[in-house]
Amino acid sequence: MTIVGIVGLGLIGGSLALDLRSQGYRVLGVSRKPQTCQTALLKHVTDEASTDLALLGKADVIFICTPIPAIAPTVRALVPHLSSAAVITDVGSVKAPIVEEITPLWENFIGGHPMAGTEAQGINAAQRDLFVGAPYVLTPVENTPARAIAVLEELVGAIGAKLYSCSPQQHDRAVAWISHLPLLVSAGLIDSCLGEEDGEVLKLARCFASSGFRDTSRVGGGNPELGLEIARANREEILRSLARYRQHLEGLFEVIEKEDWQNLEMILQQTESGRKTFGNWSRQKP
Amino acid sequence: MTIVGIVGLGLIGGSLALDLRSQGYRVLGVSRKPQTCQTALLKHVTDEASTDLALLGKADVIFICTPIPAIAPTVRALVPHLSSAAVITDVGSVKAPIVEEITPLWENFIGGHPMAGTEAQGINAAQRDLFVGAPYVLTPVENTPARAIAVLEELVGAIGAKLYSCSPQQHDRAVAWISHLPLLVSAGLIDSCLGEEDGEVLKLARCFASSGFRDTSRVGGGNPELGLEIARANREEILRSLARYRQHLEGLFEVIEKEDWQNLEMILQQTESGRKTFGNWSRQKP
Repeated sequence: MTIVGIVGLGLIGGSLALDLRSQGYRVLGVSRKPQTCQTALLKHVTDEASTDLALLGKADVIFICTPIPAIAPTVRALVPHLSSAAVITDVGSVKAPIVEEITPLWENFIGGHPMAGTEAQGINAAQRDLFVGAPYVLTPVENTPARAIAVLEELVGAIGAKLYSCSPQQHDRAVAWISHLPLLVSAGLIDSCLGEEDGEVLKLARCFASSGFRDTSRVGGGNPELGLEIARANREEILRSLARYRQHLEGLFEVIEKEDWQNLEMILQQTESGRKTFGNWSRQKP
Repeated sequence: MTIVGIVGLGLIGGSLALDLRSQGYRVLGVSRKPQTCQTALLKHVTDEASTDLALLGKADVIFICTPIPAIAPTVRALVPHLSSAAVITDVGSVKAPIVEEITPLWENFIGGHPMAGTEAQGINAAQRDLFVGAPYVLTPVENTPARAIAVLEELVGAIGAKLYSCSPQQHDRAVAWISHLPLLVSAGLIDSCLGEEDGEVLKLARCFASSGFRDTSRVGGGNPELGLEIARANREEILRSLARYRQHLEGLFEVIEKEDWQNLEMILQQTESGRKTFGNWSRQKP
C-alpha cells in the first residue's frame, strides 16, 4: 500500500491526511510544531506524526503543504531522507516559480494545486471531503516521469477532486484572472473609497454599504499576508492581468464619459452572459 | 388618517404598500398595467388600484416608484390631479438630477431612496418588512417645506427603516462609491477575463473560478438595464469615483511592479481593517 507523507499539517495538509487515511492510505505527518503533531495523533488526522523530516524516509509520495516561501527549503531538507523512487508534490497556489525551482532538486517532482479551502487555517480547520468536486490541477513538465503523474492521479481521484492538467504557466495565468486579479480589483475598491476626503460622504458611504459592496470588497479585505504572498509568487502574471484590466476599465470610463450608452449596454450584456460561463457555483459551499 | 398613493407597483412600490397598509394607512395604487392592478387588489397589496392617476387626487403623500426615466413625466401627469398640500416623494437610486427636475414642478417634493431590494422584480416579488433596518435616505434641499420632511419621517419610521438625511449631491457621491463603482469594477473584471486570447487559459480560468471570482463578479454580471440606468443617472459622480479608483489601482500596479512589498502589505492591511468600517453585514439578508 502506498505510504503518504505530508509536510505542513494545516487546513490543506490536514484535510488531505484525513481523506487519504479514510481511503486506506498510511499517512505520516510532519509539522514544525510539536503541539500540531500531538493534535494530529489525538484527532487521528495522521497515523504517525513528528517534527523530524526523517519520519518520511519510508514515504512513497510526499505532499509539501507549507506556505509558498517554505516549499523549496523543505524539499532541500527532505531530499537526504528519501529513496530516489519517492514522488514529491506541492500544493502551492502558484506553479511556475515553484516547478522551476524544485525540478532540478528532485526528478520525481510534480507540481499540484488543490483549489479548495476555507478562510479558516490550521489543523483544527482540517475537514473530510474538503476536495470533493473541487479542481485539483497537476502541472507536469516535459521531463516529469509518467509514474509520478500516475501516482498523483490516483490520489487526486481518491479524494474525489476533479483532475486538471496543464503547464505551470497556463495555471498561473488562469489563476491570475480568477483569483489574484479579483483580489487586487477588490482591494483597489476599498482603498479608493477610503480615500474620499469629504468626511460626511465617507460616513454616508459606510452606512449605505450593502450586499453589492460587501461581495465586491470581500476578497480585497481578506488576510494581507495571503495577498502579499500571492503578489510575490505570481507577480508577472498579475501585472499582465492588471494591465489588461486597466485597459478594459478605461474602455468603460470612455463610453460613460462620451455617453455612448449603446456601447455600454453591449458591454454589460456581455458581462452578464459572460459571467455565466465561469465557475460552477452550485458546487461551491456558500 | 394619512392616505398614501403609490405609482409603480413593483418590488419597491408593492413592498411599501404592504408595510404601510399593515400600519393602518389607506393605500391607493396606480400601475400602467391592468393586470398589476388586479394582482394588487387580489393580494391586498393596496386598498384601491387603478391605471388612472386621477385615483390619487385624495392622497396626502405620493411615492413615485417608477424607473428613474419615468419619474419626472409621472409627476407632470400627476400634478393636475393633486391638492397643493399633497407631498410627493420618489424612490430613485440617484437624487441630484431628480431633485433638480422635480423641485420646480412641485413645492411639496422631497427626494428619497430606500436602500433595500432583491434581485427579483415586479409586484409578485413585493414582501413585508423589506425595509426593516435598511437605510432610507431623504434628501431635502433649502426650500423643502418642513412639513414634507416631517410627513416622510413618520412614514419611514412606520416601515422600520433607518432614516438618513443628506443633500442630493452627498447621496449621489456616497452611492457612487458603494454601489455604482463596485458594479463597474466588477463588470471590468468579467470583461477583461473574457478578453484573454489564449483559449486554453480562458477555459482553465472558467473551470477554476470559485467563490472569490463569484463574489467579485456578482454585481458586474447583473441586469444590464440596471447598470445602464445607473450610469446615465449618476454619470458625473461615477466618472469621479472611477477616475479615483483608477489612480488607486495604478498605485497597486506600481508597488507590485517595483516589488515594494512593504508598501503593498501596508495597503492590504488598510483594506483589511478599512473594509470592517463599511456596512453592517449582519443586518443584510444573505
